[in-house]
Amino acid sequence: MEKIRVELAERSYDIVIGSDILRGIGDNLKSFGLSPRIAIVSNPTVFSLYGKCVSDSVKKAGFDLLTVTIPDGEEYKDLLWVQHIYDELLKHKLDRSSALIALGGGVIGDITGFAASTYMRGISYIQVPTTLLAQVDSSVGGKTGVNHKLGKNMIGTFWQPRLVWIDVETLKTLPKKELLAGLAEVIKYGVIWDEKLFDFLGVNKNKILSLDRDALTHIIKRSCEIKAEVVSRDERESGLRVILNYGHTTGHAIETVTEYKKYLHGEAVAIGMCLEARLSSMLTFIDNNKVLRIKSLVESYGLPSEMPADIDIRHILSSMELDKKAVAGELKFILPEKIGSVRIYRGVDNKMIKKLLQEQAFEK
Amino acid sequence: MEKIRVELAERSYDIVIGSDILRGIGDNLKSFGLSPRIAIVSNPTVFSLYGKCVSDSVKKAGFDLLTVTIPDGEEYKDLLWVQHIYDELLKHKLDRSSALIALGGGVIGDITGFAASTYMRGISYIQVPTTLLAQVDSSVGGKTGVNHKLGKNMIGTFWQPRLVWIDVETLKTLPKKELLAGLAEVIKYGVIWDEKLFDFLGVNKNKILSLDRDALTHIIKRSCEIKAEVVSRDERESGLRVILNYGHTTGHAIETVTEYKKYLHGEAVAIGMCLEARLSSMLTFIDNNKVLRIKSLVESYGLPSEMPADIDIRHILSSMELDKKAVAGELKFILPEKIGSVRIYRGVDNKMIKKLLQEQAFEK
Repeated sequence: MEKIRVELAERSYDIVIGSDILRGIGDNLKSFGLSPRIAIVSNPTVFSLYGKCVSDSVKKAGFDLLTVTIPDGEEYKDLLWVQHIYDELLKHKLDRSSALIALGGGVIGDITGFAASTYMRGISYIQVPTTLLAQVDSSVGGKTGVNHKLGKNMIGTFWQPRLVWIDVETLKTLPKKELLAGLAEVIKYGVIWDEKLFDFLGVNKNKILSLDRDALTHIIKRSCEIKAEVVSRDERESGLRVILNYGHTTGHAIETVTEYKKYLHGEAVAIGMCLEARLSSMLTFIDNNKVLRIKSLVESYGLPSEMPADIDIRHILSSMELDKKAVAGELKFILPEKIGSVRIYRGVDNKMIKKLLQEQAFEK
Repeated sequence: MEKIRVELAERSYDIVIGSDILRGIGDNLKSFGLSPRIAIVSNPTVFSLYGKCVSDSVKKAGFDLLTVTIPDGEEYKDLLWVQHIYDELLKHKLDRSSALIALGGGVIGDITGFAASTYMRGISYIQVPTTLLAQVDSSVGGKTGVNHKLGKNMIGTFWQPRLVWIDVETLKTLPKKELLAGLAEVIKYGVIWDEKLFDFLGVNKNKILSLDRDALTHIIKRSCEIKAEVVSRDERESGLRVILNYGHTTGHAIETVTEYKKYLHGEAVAIGMCLEARLSSMLTFIDNNKVLRIKSLVESYGLPSEMPADIDIRHILSSMELDKKAVAGELKFILPEKIGSVRIYRGVDNKMIKKLLQEQAFEK
């Protein structure tokens, strides 16, 4: 078992990574001073696979357990389903010392974290991420949120979990497409912070795709370490943390314009990373051969690297303007300078983004 | 102008109390590093009285101002109206550096604070309370929230304002009944913390009720000082802060059972204070003559001091069990030991509460 500490003063917590460790979670909750009444929030797909194992472990540790399920899919990550969670928690009299366990992917983690942060002015929650994307990204760092029809994650809070509990064995039941989408975020950590991780992904592609336990544990651990380091230095994204959004300014806009239907989050980020690397080279911040290395690694994992031809550039632009990272209409881009290092850049105007998007459309 | 500092490290802020100071608010926002796009949240009643004055001041300071109104009343303090605020903010592209100005009473302050704490993972907000209750209590300390059909303020966050701006002149347009309800909370500060304030309320009743500026400023300032002191020591109510709930365990239950229709919040708290003082004397923590002093001050301000005869005691008990302050079913009471000092007490069982409620029913 690997353990990483996220250092955030009185909000510090551990990320535990291991193989076949789900059955151990109950015992690990005992030290948190929780009320006996706690709840698991999950979706039917994940719950049918791992619900019994986690529930048994939690009950065996002496807790009285409520199960709340939410339908499977990003389209259910909204206030209506948050309301459903509140209703269940209140009906079953969960109190201020109760905790929620988020068992599932990013949707479950985000919505459960949001419910925990707003139920009775904030209760504890535990992340048990079962997708690669959630394991390397959304379960760590305390960003919670739900979608609004005008944008992704527009409603949310910063609320740190008490524990993140990652079992790599859960990836065996993850659809291949979702595994690849999660790898897009791992590539991101390589580009923004760690050339060695970037190289590891190139060299160990076959091992990773065949779910070799050690290779998976390595990339998950390294991703969590980088995220923990960044979040410890800037919890509320007032500075450094924004580098984690490399690929996301464009990626979020693509997701919004395609109504979250065409791409998984990681796939949209993959396109975003390639486009933003190209933008960086247009601004002469990075050599074009490095842009090609990024694009080539993305493509080697079967991830999309280009904006689809049928997308309306004006929609992308107007969606970007509403991005949470935009302040007073000015967009912030994270631009790579080499593999392993990025800069935060505000000087991109609409014309240059248009040029970037049109150039790509023209090439096809 | 009086200024009180709420000390909360990087979340510290000022409470400013003055007469005829609404027109000065715009200039005081300039130092906060806000985006030019900000919003006022208010209700039609308050906005028709003070909206123009505040709007003009804010616009004159260079801000682009959106107005969002919510119908007047506690029954609108719910997630549906929070959703309306989100919709408006997103439609008008308010960003992460935008701020909300809560212009109104406790309902407006609570719902605006909640919206601010959850919009784009938290934006700034300014409290401009226009009722006595909000000025001495809800606008200070960062408790935000909305009601759920199963209980008051069940959904909420801790999210501190950047500034609290109190103009005592607004009390001139406040209905007498609401002024009195606000005074219940001032009496509360006297009982839990400050016998001098308690005595001041007894001696200066006529001045206060005739809205003498100096008397009002004194009691508001003293109440805010006490609240600031308590909140600075215990922001998230893990200990001391719970003393501010004196009268509220019973008060909230009364409000819930009467569906928020029979009593204003302060009126229910007035009854709660009298009942909980009596409970304290049943437990021999306080002399009965002090219980009578409390009851007598409450009644001298025309506030209710007894549970209505037609209320079902069983409903009160089951509502108390769902109180946020109850942990694993155990209720916490704040019990006065003398005027100016309380203890936090967990050892009250249901039988004793029943006895307290029945005894009162019998006396009538």
